[in-house]
Amino acid sequence: MAKLEQLSCAKHFGGTLTKYKFKSGVLGNLDAKFNVFLPSSSAHGKVPVLMYLGGLTCTEDNAAQKGGFMRDAAAEGIAIIFPDTSPRGAGIQGEDDHWDFGTGAGWYVDATHPQWIKHYKMFTHVAQELPEVIEAAGLPVDFSRQSVLGHSMGGHGALVLYLTSLLCGSNTYRSCSAFAPVCAPSVAPWGIKAFNGYLSGGVEEGRDKYDATLLIERVRTPVNILIDYGTADEFKHQLNPDLFIDAARKAGFDETQVQVRGQDGYDHSYYFVATFAPEHVKFHARILKA
Amino acid sequence: MAKLEQLSCAKHFGGTLTKYKFKSGVLGNLDAKFNVFLPSSSAHGKVPVLMYLGGLTCTEDNAAQKGGFMRDAAAEGIAIIFPDTSPRGAGIQGEDDHWDFGTGAGWYVDATHPQWIKHYKMFTHVAQELPEVIEAAGLPVDFSRQSVLGHSMGGHGALVLYLTSLLCGSNTYRSCSAFAPVCAPSVAPWGIKAFNGYLSGGVEEGRDKYDATLLIERVRTPVNILIDYGTADEFKHQLNPDLFIDAARKAGFDETQVQVRGQDGYDHSYYFVATFAPEHVKFHARILKA
Repeated sequence: MAKLEQLSCAKHFGGTLTKYKFKSGVLGNLDAKFNVFLPSSSAHGKVPVLMYLGGLTCTEDNAAQKGGFMRDAAAEGIAIIFPDTSPRGAGIQGEDDHWDFGTGAGWYVDATHPQWIKHYKMFTHVAQELPEVIEAAGLPVDFSRQSVLGHSMGGHGALVLYLTSLLCGSNTYRSCSAFAPVCAPSVAPWGIKAFNGYLSGGVEEGRDKYDATLLIERVRTPVNILIDYGTADEFKHQLNPDLFIDAARKAGFDETQVQVRGQDGYDHSYYFVATFAPEHVKFHARILKA
Repeated sequence: MAKLEQLSCAKHFGGTLTKYKFKSGVLGNLDAKFNVFLPSSSAHGKVPVLMYLGGLTCTEDNAAQKGGFMRDAAAEGIAIIFPDTSPRGAGIQGEDDHWDFGTGAGWYVDATHPQWIKHYKMFTHVAQELPEVIEAAGLPVDFSRQSVLGHSMGGHGALVLYLTSLLCGSNTYRSCSAFAPVCAPSVAPWGIKAFNGYLSGGVEEGRDKYDATLLIERVRTPVNILIDYGTADEFKHQLNPDLFIDAARKAGFDETQVQVRGQDGYDHSYYFVATFAPEHVKFHARILKA
């Protein structure tokens, strides 16, 4: 199992925000970085954990610095893991040509296209490798009490990881929340570009594996989902929350299981995320600590 | 009076975070930018205001994005102004050669050295020009209920602006707080470099005008000062909080007027600032709303 190397550590709300790197087998032996917040209560035993997935162009730092999650995580006694959003330095041709594809834009899929298959496996990196490496390192995190959340591309990632874990019966996550997620990537320009690039089966393969609006139609177990988006979101045409609501309601999930809130006048930025971060942490805490 | 040009606006905690620029006469007709947070309560009348001064290398964005101030400012109904930390693009030789001097490092002084005198007047920019321009633009901010705070170089700035306003009798600010401030710049490497660069009288002029530890010795009126610093601050040798405490106590100010808290294990970063930001906002709110 890969060993963690500590890059930095800062005290934060009585706990610690620590950056690690390790040699990621899943990402083709590239260095992978992540931040982890541990609340002070983790000194006395393992704590529940949130996996936070970032949006396009982000690293492990953006939401840790700007998201406003730790004040409530500290109060609730919950850890938060902030992975990177793509492999770094894979050396693939075209990797750095686009801000919405390649570096900083892993889209939380496992690539099947020959050009990307060796390194771009962010789905497995986040869903399996990171928890295994963190658990093996002995950090006081209880992955049997894990939930997932994310922003934009990372909101898509959170929904897909959550719904997939329900469909395959692993039930890795107890709840899922998202800020301005790409709800239906198969019909959004960003998602179409990502699926056609990373997947040998293109959009068709994406529709099957990585489209939250199509995945929720197949779920037959109870769900806990909270989504916020801003009504002034400048990327609203990429998000399609209405398609997700329709699919969820048709699948029989009412507002107690799938809550989608249009927040009046908010945009796509971290100023929006930070505003509703406290409610998202509390949403997950209620379920994780039940 | 210079006109404000709006560059961006994001809804944030029910209020708005807006970035403006204007042609600054004080800074030698360069464009000056700032962010301002207005709580939702400002729709019904002028609100009290905090002036936040950033540290080395920062712009008007850093603390707005990472400082964690707005949640409590929104709840308390208080505006916050985030100025830049120096003029930009003055075209002075050597201006961009150092991270702790020149661009991003105005040190909140009014330069008297011929090389810098035309543009580097951040003291007057922050203390006079910004409030005048903002008031003239009709923003719902009540500068008769103003307090000042800052981080590192900006903590120095906050203390100096506050103490100077008491000494000259203008009483511009009702209270002052600082995160890891440079308390005694005349004896700190950063401060010595800044004073020798910006001031024709060098450190001697700095000692007279811009050293909080020397200024507080002269104050004869009541003060409201809160200072937090981390005991693991990597720049602790630049800060000298002990000198400031000694000077304050000798001048007769006890803990009810000058509170200086060493926070165990915290460093110099925004992870430290964000942790104590809520208490600083509440400290000022209690005084501003009394």
